[in-house]
Amino acid sequence: MKHYGNRADEVRIAYIGGGSTDWAWRLMNDLAANDKMNGTVALYDINYESAAKNALIGEKYNTAEGARSHWNYHTCTTLGEALTGADFVVISILPATFDEMESDVHTPEKYGIYQSVGDTTGPGGIVRAMRTVPMYEEFARSIKEYCPRAWVINYTNPMTVCVRTLYKTFPQVKAFGCCHEVFGTQWLLADIAQETLGIDGLKRQDIAINPVSVNHFTWLTKAYYKNIDLFPYYKEFCKKKAENLAGKPKAKAEQNFFASEEMVKIDLFNRFGYIAAAGDRHLAEFCPGNWYLSSPERVREMHFELTPVWWRKQNRKERIDHQKRLLNGEEKLEITGTDEEGVLQMNALLGLGDMVTNINIPNYGQIPNLPLGAVVETNALLRGDCVVPVFAGEIPKPIHPLVSRICAQQELIVQGTNQRDPSVIFAAFSNDPLVTCTLSDAKKLFIEMCDKTAPYLKSYNDWYKI
Amino acid sequence: MKHYGNRADEVRIAYIGGGSTDWAWRLMNDLAANDKMNGTVALYDINYESAAKNALIGEKYNTAEGARSHWNYHTCTTLGEALTGADFVVISILPATFDEMESDVHTPEKYGIYQSVGDTTGPGGIVRAMRTVPMYEEFARSIKEYCPRAWVINYTNPMTVCVRTLYKTFPQVKAFGCCHEVFGTQWLLADIAQETLGIDGLKRQDIAINPVSVNHFTWLTKAYYKNIDLFPYYKEFCKKKAENLAGKPKAKAEQNFFASEEMVKIDLFNRFGYIAAAGDRHLAEFCPGNWYLSSPERVREMHFELTPVWWRKQNRKERIDHQKRLLNGEEKLEITGTDEEGVLQMNALLGLGDMVTNINIPNYGQIPNLPLGAVVETNALLRGDCVVPVFAGEIPKPIHPLVSRICAQQELIVQGTNQRDPSVIFAAFSNDPLVTCTLSDAKKLFIEMCDKTAPYLKSYNDWYKI
Amino acid sequence: MKHYGNRADEVRIAYIGGGSTDWAWRLMNDLAANDKMNGTVALYDINYESAAKNALIGEKYNTAEGARSHWNYHTCTTLGEALTGADFVVISILPATFDEMESDVHTPEKYGIYQSVGDTTGPGGIVRAMRTVPMYEEFARSIKEYCPRAWVINYTNPMTVCVRTLYKTFPQVKAFGCCHEVFGTQWLLADIAQETLGIDGLKRQDIAINPVSVNHFTWLTKAYYKNIDLFPYYKEFCKKKAENLAGKPKAKAEQNFFASEEMVKIDLFNRFGYIAAAGDRHLAEFCPGNWYLSSPERVREMHFELTPVWWRKQNRKERIDHQKRLLNGEEKLEITGTDEEGVLQMNALLGLGDMVTNINIPNYGQIPNLPLGAVVETNALLRGDCVVPVFAGEIPKPIHPLVSRICAQQELIVQGTNQRDPSVIFAAFSNDPLVTCTLSDAKKLFIEMCDKTAPYLKSYNDWYKI
Amino acid sequence: MKHYGNRADEVRIAYIGGGSTDWAWRLMNDLAANDKMNGTVALYDINYESAAKNALIGEKYNTAEGARSHWNYHTCTTLGEALTGADFVVISILPATFDEMESDVHTPEKYGIYQSVGDTTGPGGIVRAMRTVPMYEEFARSIKEYCPRAWVINYTNPMTVCVRTLYKTFPQVKAFGCCHEVFGTQWLLADIAQETLGIDGLKRQDIAINPVSVNHFTWLTKAYYKNIDLFPYYKEFCKKKAENLAGKPKAKAEQNFFASEEMVKIDLFNRFGYIAAAGDRHLAEFCPGNWYLSSPERVREMHFELTPVWWRKQNRKERIDHQKRLLNGEEKLEITGTDEEGVLQMNALLGLGDMVTNINIPNYGQIPNLPLGAVVETNALLRGDCVVPVFAGEIPKPIHPLVSRICAQQELIVQGTNQRDPSVIFAAFSNDPLVTCTLSDAKKLFIEMCDKTAPYLKSYNDWYKI
Repeated sequence: MKHYGNRADEVRIAYIGGGSTDWAWRLMNDLAANDKMNGTVALYDINYESAAKNALIGEKYNTAEGARSHWNYHTCTTLGEALTGADFVVISILPATFDEMESDVHTPEKYGIYQSVGDTTGPGGIVRAMRTVPMYEEFARSIKEYCPRAWVINYTNPMTVCVRTLYKTFPQVKAFGCCHEVFGTQWLLADIAQETLGIDGLKRQDIAINPVSVNHFTWLTKAYYKNIDLFPYYKEFCKKKAENLAGKPKAKAEQNFFASEEMVKIDLFNRFGYIAAAGDRHLAEFCPGNWYLSSPERVREMHFELTPVWWRKQNRKERIDHQKRLLNGEEKLEITGTDEEGVLQMNALLGLGDMVTNINIPNYGQIPNLPLGAVVETNALLRGDCVVPVFAGEIPKPIHPLVSRICAQQELIVQGTNQRDPSVIFAAFSNDPLVTCTLSDAKKLFIEMCDKTAPYLKSYNDWYKI
Repeated sequence: MKHYGNRADEVRIAYIGGGSTDWAWRLMNDLAANDKMNGTVALYDINYESAAKNALIGEKYNTAEGARSHWNYHTCTTLGEALTGADFVVISILPATFDEMESDVHTPEKYGIYQSVGDTTGPGGIVRAMRTVPMYEEFARSIKEYCPRAWVINYTNPMTVCVRTLYKTFPQVKAFGCCHEVFGTQWLLADIAQETLGIDGLKRQDIAINPVSVNHFTWLTKAYYKNIDLFPYYKEFCKKKAENLAGKPKAKAEQNFFASEEMVKIDLFNRFGYIAAAGDRHLAEFCPGNWYLSSPERVREMHFELTPVWWRKQNRKERIDHQKRLLNGEEKLEITGTDEEGVLQMNALLGLGDMVTNINIPNYGQIPNLPLGAVVETNALLRGDCVVPVFAGEIPKPIHPLVSRICAQQELIVQGTNQRDPSVIFAAFSNDPLVTCTLSDAKKLFIEMCDKTAPYLKSYNDWYKI
Repeated sequence: MKHYGNRADEVRIAYIGGGSTDWAWRLMNDLAANDKMNGTVALYDINYESAAKNALIGEKYNTAEGARSHWNYHTCTTLGEALTGADFVVISILPATFDEMESDVHTPEKYGIYQSVGDTTGPGGIVRAMRTVPMYEEFARSIKEYCPRAWVINYTNPMTVCVRTLYKTFPQVKAFGCCHEVFGTQWLLADIAQETLGIDGLKRQDIAINPVSVNHFTWLTKAYYKNIDLFPYYKEFCKKKAENLAGKPKAKAEQNFFASEEMVKIDLFNRFGYIAAAGDRHLAEFCPGNWYLSSPERVREMHFELTPVWWRKQNRKERIDHQKRLLNGEEKLEITGTDEEGVLQMNALLGLGDMVTNINIPNYGQIPNLPLGAVVETNALLRGDCVVPVFAGEIPKPIHPLVSRICAQQELIVQGTNQRDPSVIFAAFSNDPLVTCTLSDAKKLFIEMCDKTAPYLKSYNDWYKI
Repeated sequence: MKHYGNRADEVRIAYIGGGSTDWAWRLMNDLAANDKMNGTVALYDINYESAAKNALIGEKYNTAEGARSHWNYHTCTTLGEALTGADFVVISILPATFDEMESDVHTPEKYGIYQSVGDTTGPGGIVRAMRTVPMYEEFARSIKEYCPRAWVINYTNPMTVCVRTLYKTFPQVKAFGCCHEVFGTQWLLADIAQETLGIDGLKRQDIAINPVSVNHFTWLTKAYYKNIDLFPYYKEFCKKKAENLAGKPKAKAEQNFFASEEMVKIDLFNRFGYIAAAGDRHLAEFCPGNWYLSSPERVREMHFELTPVWWRKQNRKERIDHQKRLLNGEEKLEITGTDEEGVLQMNALLGLGDMVTNINIPNYGQIPNLPLGAVVETNALLRGDCVVPVFAGEIPKPIHPLVSRICAQQELIVQGTNQRDPSVIFAAFSNDPLVTCTLSDAKKLFIEMCDKTAPYLKSYNDWYKI
């Protein structure tokens, strides 16, 4: 890659999961909207066909109205081919299919275990981790072989486990994980600041935050607009909103399985005094099972939703139709930019402007009271060839019991999957906050879930022996 | 105090809680049985009368058959008087009365929360901590004033909170906490070693262990007889015992509310692969409420008992009768020695022989993956004027989620009680593994429990405002 | 203070040492050049007269050509008056007078100890620390009383000791130390990048660096222009420059006691492979005495200078003349801005734009292999009401022996001055790398130096007893 | 190996350096004097002949008067043969010959660098480390292959580098280093206690100490007889002794190159307030070169000696003669036991009695302010199959500058030798406290020293390129 003044040419991006009908398009959109780079995007996917379609869509972005840069999109048949010479590697995959995810999410319901997402933690997240780790070990080994100095950006869940596996397999990897969940809370705070301070036009970037903890169970220990502390305003917001919603049960979701009234966030703030910074669906899954997910009724009472996997399947069909329409010209591409940060991060890593944002990397001490090496989410400084954490401080005492437990669980899952040892994984499974059933039921559930995703667990020792 | 060869004379011991009809007698017994020290014991108790009676009993020990040393027992009317000039301070108190303990243990049952002991953790342990902390702050301030260089041995529960409070109030205090719970597991291991290795006459001291974690939720990461690893034998024991007990529900306790068949211990070993080293009644209270304490039936299924406080009250009456009989000569004292270690520890601290044993002190790094400063239980080396921890190593990954959560909870309780802030304490309360009810029920319970122990909480802010 | 859009009004700055004829003017200059703030500057100085003159000069800045903001300057007779209500406190003082500094720098020459600056480390820096610490303890206590939430920016040397003392005395202080020494190395790197990469117009801000270690002995472990590593170019520069200078002794300085040919920097790079980032005069003082400061000849051989204090005295006279000329209009003020960062840092702390720059604050883990709490120099992120270190990484192994020694020395000096204990201070003094004389000579020297600065050491125990 | 009651049979010891005419005999002597073990000793040495002779001497010990156990001694031709099945591995080797040591010690004298021992630190210690590391890497690999669960006891210098290399090469190695230097200071303290307290018959074991730091530069932060603090008595001793010796220069050594009057120890105590616990010859080498080793005159002034290597050569001849006399019966073996602890440590590791003593192992946090992983000397608890450090506490602030520098130097040497990179090693060499010459002279010296030991440095990159 070459620098010309304040731009970079011949940038090479490898996209693992390049057939994606969601994240891949976001990247294309943001690349087109950005005027600081040009180059090549190599799309790799086990679904070659979808990647090939995406390459065509990518080319359409080059000529769409408002395109500010030009990218050569092409499809690769092997991982090595895609990675060779890459400056950046983007990973966003679905580990296995929605059939496996269906088992992850819904099998536990037999035992009264409800999951609002099921891709990060809980029984679903753990079994998904089992499938994902061998894939990420392969990615890490390939990166080591083909592009050891490339920057790797991960979007796949379970985020912590994915990033940790990259580092465990190839310790010199330059990887970090990105997630937009925190952005939602920033937007909420921007709204609150706007309303209470009487200012217009605030964006989430106007809210300076200090996120700590792990992905999807991230907490803010500071939130500022300029040098104004927003905690008192947030407290007021929580009080009012809770009063407004009290006793108003949520109607069953018709359309939107992602909507929430922030009731989980509010409840957590009332308990502990810190701002939980992710969607309620994610936050709920890290808490003891009887808090928010004991039953579908409880979920509605808390004004959020369980996202069923049938919806994901249906949604995927719609996205494939969308892909078709884009390809045949029925639908026009719009270069809008997204709220994702991957392209801005690439800019920063090329030395085209410092950036401070929340990312997931190993703990070097940015959170002194979580284990070193565990993957944590905090602010980091991104600049030329450099990602370094900003000191985030200790997990505050009131939330340390919750967070230290979760972080230790994730470390245990990483160890168990890395060793392909179901008994270690089951130690984590049986101790997961959502696993409220008996030990013997937990065993049955674990074995059934493994059985259902068995084709992806061939490298594991026999799980029925746990 | 003076040294003559390998003994010490004029040793001065202050006993806070010197009216105790249990622990005080154990100390007297052990002092009489020990030939390395002579001196004075100053008994202090808010129940002066009982302390005065104990002073008389103490004198009887001096002349009992087999007495190997002589101690002057006297009663003090003030704490300062008792502490002045002390070489050692022993603390074993009942914070408040069994009426308050009755509330601690049984009030939560309304909300389906059962506690097998109720003095260490769970709702009962937390409210007991609230009562105890102001007392221990006073003890620490008095020790600082009257005998800052004395060694302080604590036996009172909640152990961790008591010891932590001493250090928080007077950071130079030379205090440690002692508990015999681990000894029980050592005896169990001695039995197992004896049986499987075909050796006779093993004592708990023959089993070298590496305890880690916090008091009453202590775990062994190593257990050796000579250089023989006992873990494989323990594994075998767990397997057999579990098979034997399977499906045999325990009959309701008639006499012994302390008996157990080690089923909790066995279940924990099967889950995590490490030896939990305390009585089942204590271990169960640190685990998620649905594991072992969801109902009295579940407790019986696990072959242990809930200790009701009526039994403690009745037992106390019997001990007072016992005291009378000892005083009026109806019953004769016997110098048997006990399995407690306080007197041996004093020997060691006087430089009369090194000792390695498990105690509770702040974490200086002996357990690298628990917070520095938190009170933990590990081995320590005791020698002349010196107690230093032996490096215990990390909490193993499988039990780190459980232990890190508990340890963080205790730190939070210490902060909340120290600040007399019910909202901080309630953050811990509502997140306690045993508190399985809803947040609003938890609030009601907390307020009711505080109300019932209100005379002891005068220094706290209003708890109904949480 | 109030925010209006992207600016802040009614900002209040207290300046301790406000009579300064150097640093105070730089601040005035930068304030006038900045359009993001307005407000008040309270000048406090034990030399009231000079502060009063500066207040008049300050007013002149308001009307000078190019002034972009307006500041009310006034003089205070007490520290408390100056600090009351301050948003920012700036400290730049001369601890005592140049007479004391003359002793600091030149007394050791009797024993063959030469110092190129004498205000940071070495015998001079240590005795200066003795004078300075009681002053900074008073500053810290006053800040705690009058403006505990103000941000405090220190420019005084010895930097590390000053900042450490503020934190030791008032742990909640929001203080950091600023120093432009690193900027010089950034400019050097910008020159090198410009020349080797064929780019024009680079400024020091274009060079992204990772500074570590302690003030005036700072090292760069990374230096980038965009994402281009500058270490290979620096290596080349060192090689060529060393060849050019080989055998060319420096002529004795006529005018410029600050000029250097970077020979110390080059020698250190050749030894250890990392870029020392301060002026050679400062770097030399932290190294073993026989390396660069064994004699005036050795100094010339290394192409730098010993700065004599007579020059400082003469220069001070010139600056006072300059002050007069500014006041009587003989000389006109020019609003040029300076290369200092204080005003930009204030902008950032008011939430008017993030800033990443090198500052001196306690070690929270940003340098894992230096003691926690020691004051270190690394990058930090400055934003609304927030200064947090950026993770800097370990001191590289080759320079860790040098740096760990210096850092430990500084911690010892802080302890000794804080306790007013000359024997502890002398333990550091006698172990200082520059103190190459015998122990008994070191004692004589220490006592003589203390005697000469005795009026400022009244709170210390008798130093002749060491 | 088998246990019978409180003894162990069939214990297998492998001795690397089994031809030693000093340490090997000490072990034989101690084994014979010990009644808790029987078994086999496999002697391995690159000097097979000497090992074979030692095997015969070993057999003589079995029948000597007072022998309390029986050991089968045999000689092995390969390392693997010796190690196979070993329970313990003892290593005491001379890396290369006294010719190489002659260069290590005396070559630097050309540049005014004097070394009193030359085997641990300084130029001699560094070049010796270069020779030794490849040997220890081989030992570690062989232990991993042939007896990975054996306990390894090292006696060879440079101790720290040897032990660190074992762990770096085979992280699971169960190795520790033993050194009797601390014992000497314990004896000195026993003498002082005896005299001042009026007690008879004290032995070093009666003095309880807390050693910290690194081998041969070990410091005591505590020294007790029973519970009596010996620091005040030591202080008095230092004062008196210094007065007695003042102005009395030492006569040149005739016979004893090891004698000292503890003047270095006393000087260090006076500077820093802590007890340096090794022979003066060793201590001096870790201090700045101008303190105690600037010239032979300075050494005599400090009442210790430079040990010339010609004496070692001569002494070796005498020991070989001694070996002959033992073999041909001219001289009789005496079973006296020695003051070494290896055999007692083996007892402890077999579970035959706990032991607390000072050893060299990696830092797990026993010294919180030295780097984790660096090899440090502190107390440890030895029991059945277990060596764990006792928490030693921070290096006190006054000596932290000295110790942190030395420890960092050792880490750098280990890195440089491990990577076979002379430029890294030279970074340490040129920064060694004893290397008081210029950088260019240091280069010449380093190259000359490497050249002289070149046959042992074949695996290193070209050292003349530094």
